Amino acid sequence: MVNETHFQRELEELKESLLRMATLVEEAINHAVQSLIRRDPELAQKTFEAEDRINTMDIAIESKCLKLLALRQPMAIDLRFITSSMKIVTDLERMGDQASNIAERSLSLNQEPQLKPYIDIPRIAEIAQSMVKDVLDAFVNRNSKLARSVCERDDLVDGLNDQVFRELLTYMISDPKTVTRSVHLMIVCRCLERIADHATNIAEDVIFMVDALVIKHHADAKEEGEGRNIS
Amino acid sequence: MVNETHFQRELEELKESLLRMATLVEEAINHAVQSLIRRDPELAQKTFEAEDRINTMDIAIESKCLKLLALRQPMAIDLRFITSSMKIVTDLERMGDQASNIAERSLSLNQEPQLKPYIDIPRIAEIAQSMVKDVLDAFVNRNSKLARSVCERDDLVDGLNDQVFRELLTYMISDPKTVTRSVHLMIVCRCLERIADHATNIAEDVIFMVDALVIKHHADAKEEGEGRNIS
Repeated sequence: MVNETHFQRELEELKESLLRMATLVEEAINHAVQSLIRRDPELAQKTFEAEDRINTMDIAIESKCLKLLALRQPMAIDLRFITSSMKIVTDLERMGDQASNIAERSLSLNQEPQLKPYIDIPRIAEIAQSMVKDVLDAFVNRNSKLARSVCERDDLVDGLNDQVFRELLTYMISDPKTVTRSVHLMIVCRCLERIADHATNIAEDVIFMVDALVIKHHADAKEEGEGRNIS
Repeated sequence: MVNETHFQRELEELKESLLRMATLVEEAINHAVQSLIRRDPELAQKTFEAEDRINTMDIAIESKCLKLLALRQPMAIDLRFITSSMKIVTDLERMGDQASNIAERSLSLNQEPQLKPYIDIPRIAEIAQSMVKDVLDAFVNRNSKLARSVCERDDLVDGLNDQVFRELLTYMISDPKTVTRSVHLMIVCRCLERIADHATNIAEDVIFMVDALVIKHHADAKEEGEGRNIS
């Protein structure tokens, strides 16, 4: 009984570490996007600093998970919680990489005049950030409904991204001087899209963990004829 | 003793499933790249078909890994082998997605005249494919030296990618009619770069599994002052 309580406390600590890591990732994304919007290189620097801390946490949490698997030999929901955690830290760490990529592009972009007012990019960033936040809430509260809403938002991000892409193409075609900046902005959008993809991956892990159900690859949609449309 | 032998056979089967999945992914990448180079839409179609099979294998192997963790409660190298396998299928599945992205771009590109002779892109593809092949060899033969050589090739891919990127920028700037095709080609390069990244992720898992050592995030390089340069 003492052991069981001790194990539950270890799981609780694991959960808290993941939440701390997720908060760092959210901040890193926010600083990267704000460094672009406010044209502030110091905010980009904050993203680079956060990346080191995120990487350190990735290693520590993964090693903790392996220890729990080896020493506690968990079953059922606890087993899925630990293996899901291992996947989630990988996704969080890669989100941190994408935030740094955005920060790098923002440093380059801010050395030239601003190409256009940023309207859609902050919107994409906002949705992507909400996905990161909500998917971790869904994970710690074992809320598969919230996780499903994160999956749905991915389509919204993809749609906005396509829109910005097309707009930037018209800039590039009409004025060669805009090409370099447009490509940087396209890459920023791609990074945000990838962050949303990672959040979606985590959402699928959460649904799997909670419902022990695989919705990856739209397996359910195919069987039940459901789409993943956003209203 | 019977149980032990049975468990070893299960691990052997897991290894074989991963190899089959990796072979499918290699073929999917090859068909996608060849559909671009030979301007052959049927090869792109083969990539899309492979993606479905890759996704099915992803789900099956992950479920097999969870069963092994729950029922066999493995220790040490066997535990690391199974948790690494779970991460490797995720990377393989995402490589399959990237192959499909390349196939889609190739369908679009092949509806217009070829922008330029493809020289660097097949080279990048070749290196990325060699990384996928070698990293799986490294995994099944527990060869961390080969895994390290895969990590080194990632820098080569990034360098070539930057070169193609710069070349395509000059096309776009000098002739607006090349913009759309150039962007498609840039995305093809990004996809190949991401495939190489996934191979590098797997290589890091292999090194971790074999040496129980984390080289992710250049932790060792930082401590020992070593870089990861290619000669």
